[in-house]
Amino acid sequence: MNNPLNLILRTAIFLCLMLSLTVSAQTDEETLKTIYKTSLTNGKSYEWLDYLSNTIGGRLSGSTNAELAVQYTKAELEKLGLDKVWLQPVMVPKWVRGQKEMAYFETSGALNKVNICALGGSIATPNGGVKASVLEVGSYKDLEKLGEEKIKGKIVFINRALQADLIHTFEAYGGCSVERYRGAAEAAKYGALGTIVRSLSSRQDDYPHTGSMGYGDLPVEQRIPSAAISTNDAVKLSEALKKDKNLEFFFEMSCQQFDDVESYNVIGQITGSEFPDEYIVVGGHLDSWDLGDGAHDDGAGVVQSMDVLRLLKESGVKPKRSIRVVLFMNEENGLRGGRKYAEVANEKNEKHVFALESDSGGFTPRGFSFDCSDLMLSKIQAWKPLFKPYLIHFFEEGYSGADIRPLKNDDIVLAGLRPDSQRYFDHHHAANDTFEHVNKRELELGAATMTSLVFLMDKYGTQTITNEKKLKD
Amino acid sequence: MNNPLNLILRTAIFLCLMLSLTVSAQTDEETLKTIYKTSLTNGKSYEWLDYLSNTIGGRLSGSTNAELAVQYTKAELEKLGLDKVWLQPVMVPKWVRGQKEMAYFETSGALNKVNICALGGSIATPNGGVKASVLEVGSYKDLEKLGEEKIKGKIVFINRALQADLIHTFEAYGGCSVERYRGAAEAAKYGALGTIVRSLSSRQDDYPHTGSMGYGDLPVEQRIPSAAISTNDAVKLSEALKKDKNLEFFFEMSCQQFDDVESYNVIGQITGSEFPDEYIVVGGHLDSWDLGDGAHDDGAGVVQSMDVLRLLKESGVKPKRSIRVVLFMNEENGLRGGRKYAEVANEKNEKHVFALESDSGGFTPRGFSFDCSDLMLSKIQAWKPLFKPYLIHFFEEGYSGADIRPLKNDDIVLAGLRPDSQRYFDHHHAANDTFEHVNKRELELGAATMTSLVFLMDKYGTQTITNEKKLKD
Repeated sequence: MNNPLNLILRTAIFLCLMLSLTVSAQTDEETLKTIYKTSLTNGKSYEWLDYLSNTIGGRLSGSTNAELAVQYTKAELEKLGLDKVWLQPVMVPKWVRGQKEMAYFETSGALNKVNICALGGSIATPNGGVKASVLEVGSYKDLEKLGEEKIKGKIVFINRALQADLIHTFEAYGGCSVERYRGAAEAAKYGALGTIVRSLSSRQDDYPHTGSMGYGDLPVEQRIPSAAISTNDAVKLSEALKKDKNLEFFFEMSCQQFDDVESYNVIGQITGSEFPDEYIVVGGHLDSWDLGDGAHDDGAGVVQSMDVLRLLKESGVKPKRSIRVVLFMNEENGLRGGRKYAEVANEKNEKHVFALESDSGGFTPRGFSFDCSDLMLSKIQAWKPLFKPYLIHFFEEGYSGADIRPLKNDDIVLAGLRPDSQRYFDHHHAANDTFEHVNKRELELGAATMTSLVFLMDKYGTQTITNEKKLKD
Repeated sequence: MNNPLNLILRTAIFLCLMLSLTVSAQTDEETLKTIYKTSLTNGKSYEWLDYLSNTIGGRLSGSTNAELAVQYTKAELEKLGLDKVWLQPVMVPKWVRGQKEMAYFETSGALNKVNICALGGSIATPNGGVKASVLEVGSYKDLEKLGEEKIKGKIVFINRALQADLIHTFEAYGGCSVERYRGAAEAAKYGALGTIVRSLSSRQDDYPHTGSMGYGDLPVEQRIPSAAISTNDAVKLSEALKKDKNLEFFFEMSCQQFDDVESYNVIGQITGSEFPDEYIVVGGHLDSWDLGDGAHDDGAGVVQSMDVLRLLKESGVKPKRSIRVVLFMNEENGLRGGRKYAEVANEKNEKHVFALESDSGGFTPRGFSFDCSDLMLSKIQAWKPLFKPYLIHFFEEGYSGADIRPLKNDDIVLAGLRPDSQRYFDHHHAANDTFEHVNKRELELGAATMTSLVFLMDKYGTQTITNEKKLKD
């Protein structure tokens, strides 16, 4: 086997291989460079977010603003020259806050006003409010031990702070969110008159943070109202209770649940040139809570996802597969949009190969978390060097996003954009989730990072999946 | 050599080695965990910054506020139970802004007010201001081609925007800062009456950004006033000039340079247990520009550096070498503090082995840039896994910091903390560099990251340097 011709042949093959790899790598590097440059110098995400936040505002499912957002984003997508833009009908819950909530506690004759807001899905207080003494607990889990005797007729105050030493704030939030969601249903079982839950915020301030809660299978007549209290006021109330455990707390809320109404997911598509029947989804959720203007949660994800399709076009990328932007309705209090999209996709037998969600704020992107096989993850991790110039370093296994999770099956790769999380829960679900807290460059870097991953997944990723599947079969 | 005893012995040695390595690695991991936890749950940096920003405010060299900051930080360091706290006298320039600047341009009879601020070191306009037609250029480098004929009697408007597609905003700033520094001196050579420089900001808004400028060896009588204009107004002025190139611009400033005054570097020290005569410096600069309260530039670096010594103590670390926090005076418009510290260190023949500066804002830390040998850098990079849980990933060759650079020699390792840079130049040197734009967790993560590197450098780094030196000698 040592004849010179053989050696020359093998060397030539090796060189060709190296050359093709080099050319291919350079091309991807150049494409990413173009994508990032286009986003930072000619992005549309910030302008769209300005309109969505400042002209429309908070977009709770079933509200007029949510419908305005549907119309606006559909119209904007139609301007992009995509192959198809449409609305996908979906019935959504309609919960309305009503008048601004009011609350105070009384200490030796003094009235201390506190900042609260109704949790999404809560019933109203009786007309004229609720006034009762307060039982402070560290978690709803303490209620079972305390029992009806100590709870009945009281307002339960769940005062659990986010764990500050967790680096990923989503971990700290995940640890506490069950208190908000289940607190009222658990307290009601023991005869509480209402629940007040410490806001799931990373910082001390005066903003109460809303978010969804549920009553589970609790009969309607047993349900009790539930509110979030600002972190500053949670500390004040707790201090006051140390001095006077019999102090009384008053709160009044007029929120109301109406019948479901029709709304829409907004969808735009670039049809694939080679495999038009394979779909890649990129999305965020169009609805938001009502207190702020939903700029970070999830206006940012919406406009970044819209810009992914535009940035691909502007950067001269012609996708092989069909790329869809999906702006999901009702992530916050129902997830109806995400479920509907997956339901229709299943009915139509559409093959979805990759889905990416941005729903963690418009902060500087750090990378992605992936819900896929270890093998696929290791292949994706091999792209890390391409992202290094953009300081994107986080490619780990983890949660993708609530809206795309219903698409999960053995073949699809699900991913979530992971922006820097330190400030997210300062704003999340509160009146200070507003446009001025989104930085243009950070938002645009996120859009470019998402576009780059979609580009690579379209070009290589699903091929890899297909090959792996063949090996398995 | 194949006798069983020998094999057993070698295995035993190998196992002991592995064991000691494992124990050592665990200990470092645990120490970093303690440091981060302490900073996030019991840090002092944010409280100190609150006082420095909100109670004291902007701290321009030579001002009363700068002296208040010297007294405050000295008193706070004295509370920490360090081995030594002292003031190091240094003469600093004293430049005073005077009355708020005023500027407008006239278009077809309409008066368009614009936001400007004097650049630090500029002379005042003549009493009553300067009014002249405007010559817009993209850079001071264009002036030579244009020549005296086109420049004389005009106000030169240098309208160079930061390059948006550079990912590291410091690179974009570095590209433009020469326009601010040299613009007036160059324009004066050709008879201009003043210069207006586009603010070195990453975003479009109404804040003018100051910063230092210099006249070089230009005779006093030839010097002209120089101001920064907000990015929004730079765009407006440029648009207006397209329509009417003869429009007139007016500006008035009353800034003034006084004689140098005495001020201080503030220094605190934990004396090393094994090598007390080897010094590690961690620092930021205590002075700031006067428009905002200097929270990011460089209040953040000051309080983080102070907390490094406190966090070491709180985490039970007893440094082998002497660790000094140095709060440098006059980084912004003279660098006298940094030069003085190095001068005294040289006089005393103090052996400095490592210096770390935080002067890039109190944003989420991403890592460090290092000014040291390649070999040393590769040894430091081997610590990257220790920092991974804290999302610290950037360990690259690069600039350290202005204040510590005078310490540079062949043996010292210089490093700069590298926080996320996307928002820095939105605030830098402007009225919106204020406390509310600093996030507590981001600031505390920075302090913990600095403390961790100081801990590792004290424990291992300088040993490595010494060994390398011995090999070279």
